[in-house]
Amino acid sequence: MYDPDNIFAKILRGEIPCIKVYEDADAIAFMDIMPQSDGHLLVVPREPAAEIFELSDEAAQAAICVTKKLAIAVRKAFAPDGLTITQFNGAAAGQTVPHVHFHIVPRYADRPLRGHARDKQDVDLLKQHAERIIAALNEQQ
Amino acid sequence: MYDPDNIFAKILRGEIPCIKVYEDADAIAFMDIMPQSDGHLLVVPREPAAEIFELSDEAAQAAICVTKKLAIAVRKAFAPDGLTITQFNGAAAGQTVPHVHFHIVPRYADRPLRGHARDKQDVDLLKQHAERIIAALNEQQ
Repeated sequence: MYDPDNIFAKILRGEIPCIKVYEDADAIAFMDIMPQSDGHLLVVPREPAAEIFELSDEAAQAAICVTKKLAIAVRKAFAPDGLTITQFNGAAAGQTVPHVHFHIVPRYADRPLRGHARDKQDVDLLKQHAERIIAALNEQQ
Repeated sequence: MYDPDNIFAKILRGEIPCIKVYEDADAIAFMDIMPQSDGHLLVVPREPAAEIFELSDEAAQAAICVTKKLAIAVRKAFAPDGLTITQFNGAAAGQTVPHVHFHIVPRYADRPLRGHARDKQDVDLLKQHAERIIAALNEQQ
C-alpha cells in the first residue's frame, strides 16, 4: 500500500525541499543527503509506487532513461572509477523510503563506500556537488 | 571498448550454455552461477554495450521492463523479504563481465548475502530455482 506521506512524495509535491539536479514530466533527481560517496544521487519517478513491482512499464522506462542520463553526467562531473546503480525493494533490501527510487552511486577505488542512509552530508558541499552535475548535464544537451 | 568475446556475448550467441529463465528480442535472463542468494538472476540486454553509459535508451527501456517482469516472478517464486536490483559499471563498482547487465537479488531477513561472484552454486539446484521462476512467469502471463 502506497503511503502518500512518505518523504519523497512530499518532495515531489514541493512540500519539503531537496537539492535538485534534474526534473522532467516523469521523474526528479536530487542529491542523497546521506551519500555513500561523493556524487551519490537519487532518481525518483513521479508515479506513486512503493516498489518496482507496482511501477508501470512506462514509468520504469522513463526512470531508467533519466538514470542513464544522470549517470553519464555524474561520470563526467566526478570521474569515478566505477558507478553502481541500485534499486532497493523492501526494508530487508535496504529500502528506507517507501517510494520507488534508483540510486546512482559513484565508486572510487581509493575510498570505501560510506554506510547507506547513515550520516548526513554538509548541505553546502551537496549543493556544490549538485552544481557540478548540473553543469555536466548542460554540456550533454 | 566492447569486447565481443566476453562471457555474456558468448552466451547471447549460444556458444556457451546458461540456465535460462527468459528471453525475448531485446534481452535474455539466466541464473547467476555464483548467486548471492537463492533466486539471484541476471538480465542481459542483447545490444553490445560494456556499461550503461553506452547502452541505447531503447535497450535500457527494454531491459528495465524485463527486469521488472522477472523481479515480480522471483518474488512470487521465492517470497523473499526484499529484493535488490543492481547494475555495476566498471571493476571498481564490482562489474566482473564487461557486458551491461542487471542483477536481481532476493533478500532474506534471516540470511546474509553471499559474496558477489565468489562461490559456484550446484547446477542442479540452480536449475530447480530456474524452474520455479519460469513457473511463476507462466502464471503471470
